[in-house]
Amino acid sequence: MSGPLGLEGIFEEQAIPLPMRRAGMAEWHGDHVRILDRRALPLREEYLRCFTSAELASAIENMVIQGAYSISIAAGYGLALSVSENPDAQCLSKLNSDAEQLIATRPTGLALKRMITACLKTAHEAVKRGENVREKILALVDRGAQALARQGYETGKNACDLIEDGATILTHCFPDRSFVYLLLETARRNKSLSVICSETRPYLQGSRITALCAHHVGFDTRVITDGMGGFLMRDGKIDVFITAADRVCMDGTVCNKIGTYQYALAAKANKLPYYTLRQSGPDIESAGESDIKIEYRPGDELVHFNGVRIAPIGVEGLYPGFDIVPPDLVSRIVTDRGVFPPADIGKYIHTPPVVMDTVV
Amino acid sequence: MSGPLGLEGIFEEQAIPLPMRRAGMAEWHGDHVRILDRRALPLREEYLRCFTSAELASAIENMVIQGAYSISIAAGYGLALSVSENPDAQCLSKLNSDAEQLIATRPTGLALKRMITACLKTAHEAVKRGENVREKILALVDRGAQALARQGYETGKNACDLIEDGATILTHCFPDRSFVYLLLETARRNKSLSVICSETRPYLQGSRITALCAHHVGFDTRVITDGMGGFLMRDGKIDVFITAADRVCMDGTVCNKIGTYQYALAAKANKLPYYTLRQSGPDIESAGESDIKIEYRPGDELVHFNGVRIAPIGVEGLYPGFDIVPPDLVSRIVTDRGVFPPADIGKYIHTPPVVMDTVV
Repeated sequence: MSGPLGLEGIFEEQAIPLPMRRAGMAEWHGDHVRILDRRALPLREEYLRCFTSAELASAIENMVIQGAYSISIAAGYGLALSVSENPDAQCLSKLNSDAEQLIATRPTGLALKRMITACLKTAHEAVKRGENVREKILALVDRGAQALARQGYETGKNACDLIEDGATILTHCFPDRSFVYLLLETARRNKSLSVICSETRPYLQGSRITALCAHHVGFDTRVITDGMGGFLMRDGKIDVFITAADRVCMDGTVCNKIGTYQYALAAKANKLPYYTLRQSGPDIESAGESDIKIEYRPGDELVHFNGVRIAPIGVEGLYPGFDIVPPDLVSRIVTDRGVFPPADIGKYIHTPPVVMDTVV
Repeated sequence: MSGPLGLEGIFEEQAIPLPMRRAGMAEWHGDHVRILDRRALPLREEYLRCFTSAELASAIENMVIQGAYSISIAAGYGLALSVSENPDAQCLSKLNSDAEQLIATRPTGLALKRMITACLKTAHEAVKRGENVREKILALVDRGAQALARQGYETGKNACDLIEDGATILTHCFPDRSFVYLLLETARRNKSLSVICSETRPYLQGSRITALCAHHVGFDTRVITDGMGGFLMRDGKIDVFITAADRVCMDGTVCNKIGTYQYALAAKANKLPYYTLRQSGPDIESAGESDIKIEYRPGDELVHFNGVRIAPIGVEGLYPGFDIVPPDLVSRIVTDRGVFPPADIGKYIHTPPVVMDTVV
């Protein structure tokens, strides 16, 4: 007996780790968006209901939801909350400012920006045509979610081709849907992997979410702190370093969770490949590093843990949220359209899509 | 009005940050050793009383006390607990096995091994001469504590000469007494520093203890996670990377807390100096990396935080406790006898001591 399939149409929904199921990202519930509170994972399954776009923006800012892909879906539904079904000009002005607020939650997030920009365009067109604006936005987000899932699957499948049976992967943060499909596809091909998850302080996405996913798929899964990967590479315990990317520039520069640069340096020093998973390719508006604005987050998040202060009173945290990895440290950028050396990532644009991108 | 001076005889005891005062390391109390529980810092000042050598070994293993220097003092007092004042042959056999147990708590700890070996030698000589064995051990540890403090001061002073007024230092873990003296000496010379402490998961010695010390001395002090130093170096926010060393080999290889290697790599890649503070110089019995055994600690420590599980059930931690930094990543090794390029650290042995080493 087989259950319903996931958004990508390949794996049974129940075989997919929770954070990548529909319920694990964002679901439209008529008058609110329901999102899985990833901060409560892995031990508790809790959901948050957002009734306004501002609530959803706040949820993104507070890391309730995480991962470029899931954030873009949630934000798309969030924007649908900001319009009535037949908005007037004033509503459109609210829609514009809500869209700005949603995009501003992740200045480095390309998928988010793409989704919101597309939703906004759809909304304006719907108004002109006298169509139901909210329905049009929801349909776009649903199609986008499916297309992104299938892009993620293609990306994971391409990554799977690169990795040998029995390899040990080091990951950092939560490398989102492409990585989960890499795991699922590896299992589907009856191949094996070991996964070492760098915990990714302060939010521990690695030990909480990536570890949850790898363990759900059935692979040997271990966690380390963010200072340990270099030693383990040097000690021969790791075969390949893999992360997602919040953004890839046209020159192959990678922007990803803070901590990625140090591991990429260590991979290079130890002659190990570093693969960046980046479904939907580079950002054509980012030529290189100078086009990336690194978000500094509140330092307070570093001096507390689970509400307990861990640093002396009077000491502050310094918290750059994202890292820059220059192209010479990146071995390959894996996308839904194929695998590219960083210098050639611009060729993505001219490569025929396997999955029709319904959002851009 | 001036108070009593610290063990090094230069600074007032109260001006010295708590972890480097007598009470902050280990104190002999007649029938027990009292040690500051560093795990409770920075918010609570708690002390543990150890009545047997085994209790003290367990305290070291459980990270109640930390730092090569403080551990060696505590362990020396601990060994004094294992003898009666006039031991017979059976007691000496117990002393030998207790000494082994104490040394085994930190296979990478050179100061510890030196101290315990010296105590054991003193004990055996005292037995032969019919002297009070416990008193002889205690006197040796007291003299050793003073000598190590003065060595630490000389090391800190030498490091101070290398660092420019207004520099921003990145540290990792707690770089022990030499680093605290570097801070105190910098302040004494009316120079300024900013200190960025890498938190050092899982025990957070950086955000708890190093930050406490730097803040106590009065310098601008911030904490980061163990994944952030590379970005900040690349972003021009750091001038110099400084750590202690649990051991330095004769070829300049440095063994220090896990996480040090990644930062040393990033310092090199960004043309920043990495200074290793290593009072008492290299280990003449360690020619190079192959002589260092890296201790793997229980992985359980990585999947819990403050008693709360942070990783999914079924997922384990992989926890190498120490890191290896090859000599080509080390700019200078700073000792009590001067500053050496890593390739020249063997010259330490033939350099006249400034402080008479009473232990070795």
